[in-house]
Amino acid sequence: METLRDIGEFGLINRVARMLPGNEAVVEGIGDDCAVLKIGGALALVSCDASIEDVHFKRCLSAPEDIGWKAMTSAISDIAAMGGHPRFALITLACPAGTETEFVDRLYHGFSTVATRFGVTIVGGDTAHSPSGIAVDIMVIGETVEGRYLLRSGAQQNDVLAVTGYPGRSAAGLLALERGLTACPLIPAHVFPVPRVEEGKWFAQQPSVHAMIDLSDGLVQDAGHIAERSGLGLDIDPERVPIAPELDAYQDTLGINPRDLALAGGEEYELILALDPKHSDDIRQAFQDRFFMPLTVVGHFMEASHGVCVAGEPVSPKGFDHFRK
Amino acid sequence: METLRDIGEFGLINRVARMLPGNEAVVEGIGDDCAVLKIGGALALVSCDASIEDVHFKRCLSAPEDIGWKAMTSAISDIAAMGGHPRFALITLACPAGTETEFVDRLYHGFSTVATRFGVTIVGGDTAHSPSGIAVDIMVIGETVEGRYLLRSGAQQNDVLAVTGYPGRSAAGLLALERGLTACPLIPAHVFPVPRVEEGKWFAQQPSVHAMIDLSDGLVQDAGHIAERSGLGLDIDPERVPIAPELDAYQDTLGINPRDLALAGGEEYELILALDPKHSDDIRQAFQDRFFMPLTVVGHFMEASHGVCVAGEPVSPKGFDHFRK
Repeated sequence: METLRDIGEFGLINRVARMLPGNEAVVEGIGDDCAVLKIGGALALVSCDASIEDVHFKRCLSAPEDIGWKAMTSAISDIAAMGGHPRFALITLACPAGTETEFVDRLYHGFSTVATRFGVTIVGGDTAHSPSGIAVDIMVIGETVEGRYLLRSGAQQNDVLAVTGYPGRSAAGLLALERGLTACPLIPAHVFPVPRVEEGKWFAQQPSVHAMIDLSDGLVQDAGHIAERSGLGLDIDPERVPIAPELDAYQDTLGINPRDLALAGGEEYELILALDPKHSDDIRQAFQDRFFMPLTVVGHFMEASHGVCVAGEPVSPKGFDHFRK
Repeated sequence: METLRDIGEFGLINRVARMLPGNEAVVEGIGDDCAVLKIGGALALVSCDASIEDVHFKRCLSAPEDIGWKAMTSAISDIAAMGGHPRFALITLACPAGTETEFVDRLYHGFSTVATRFGVTIVGGDTAHSPSGIAVDIMVIGETVEGRYLLRSGAQQNDVLAVTGYPGRSAAGLLALERGLTACPLIPAHVFPVPRVEEGKWFAQQPSVHAMIDLSDGLVQDAGHIAERSGLGLDIDPERVPIAPELDAYQDTLGINPRDLALAGGEEYELILALDPKHSDDIRQAFQDRFFMPLTVVGHFMEASHGVCVAGEPVSPKGFDHFRK
């Protein structure tokens, strides 16, 4: 019998989307980082994000505050990925009856640290008993700024692909953590990632930015989602992907190729964009001046028939799949 | 070390609520069936509701469609309990990689059957791998009608307590199901409960209805929440609780006292109200005329010092607690 292992996470999402009709208040439904809804005359952005013990986090590797921090970052990042302004969060927490109240206090401390920093108010949720393991689900409600938001599907042929910051650091930080290299400067990128909220809102106001997604599953996979949803092909030039100096410095200690991690590592929460090539220099300079962080062109979109390539070689943009790993 | 078993579900909710500040856009935060939020000039109602395998449902007892039906009913009922109009749902689904795709299709069939019936559009969510067991979390976003909604905290001293329909049937249906009495007419009340959406909206427009909650944990427990949040005491007269003829007929077969089930049984999704005694006859008659269902006075609110009583005897309104059962 066919199982979720056979069809994978994206097969499941496509399958579910086909079963569910929309209506006129649903401006964007299933398939992007958030749904876009007409509520009370405004365009609202809503999204859910689950964090499951032993899938998204391990209690032996992460402090409760850090689990809460990352779960909230990941949830808010879905709003950032559309260029929205996150406002409210609801948290569903399922845990075994033997869970220490101190653990829960510290988990909420992590949630609220990130929420407060980004102006998000936690307004409710649900609590439930779980027979085994802790599960967190965070729903975030955001607003669009001036009614503008960016979809995955807006890329145009000949657009360039650009990425904020330095991808690969979170995956390297996890490796360092697993090997007990507690002084490694890459660990904070894994433990305390931040959603690019202000950056996303800024991009949504630039007409030359055509599509956006957050880097949660890996640069190749997430950029591949933009290509697929836009009906385009894509070539990524791995030599142009910016490598953080600390990632470069730790390549021998960790036994890694920094460029491989930068292409495939997830949980970065950087933003990936499709950009009008005529304005890419201006946008990159203006971004750097405003946010003190690089925006780097790492590829370009092509006809759909090219598929998704890295240095001209076709790749299967599968990255991390929850049901297939 | 203190655990969730020690403080219980409501202890956990109170603990979390203390840690989380509100702001001016949060009209009502944690503590009621929904949060009430200002979004785009309107008052929106939002709520989450989790359904966990082997806690809320067992796959050996329920068809996938029925699990989906009940999870969506329970989620929409939170909006009904405030008198709101449910509009959108997001569903987070976590399941093992070996879950059959057919199971997922049938689960979504259950979700969408109830959602469609109540005009709710499923607009997105999240999917995740779960190491053991299926977990569903549904977020529902609703609108207020004319800006009106009912809280748990609005009951006034001398208000009467009223309940819609015939409580106790769902708990009896579960007993019948567990004993293999598949022809028992009480089973549909357990398997296919419906949220009282239109009824809730109607109540929210009646100025003589002061407070409302849905019957999810048991009549005594849920009515106790109204009393507690309103700073009042409560006396419930068990002789006045309406007993469905089919519940009465099955009392010997099931070996139950119908009145006990009607007082303690959960998952009914009937509505429980605090009602101005001067208008209770008019409201009950108008409700019966409109919805072809009884609205029955089953108790009255008193000074807080009386506590929560059944037939004058103090009770501990604990009912079902996820962490203490």
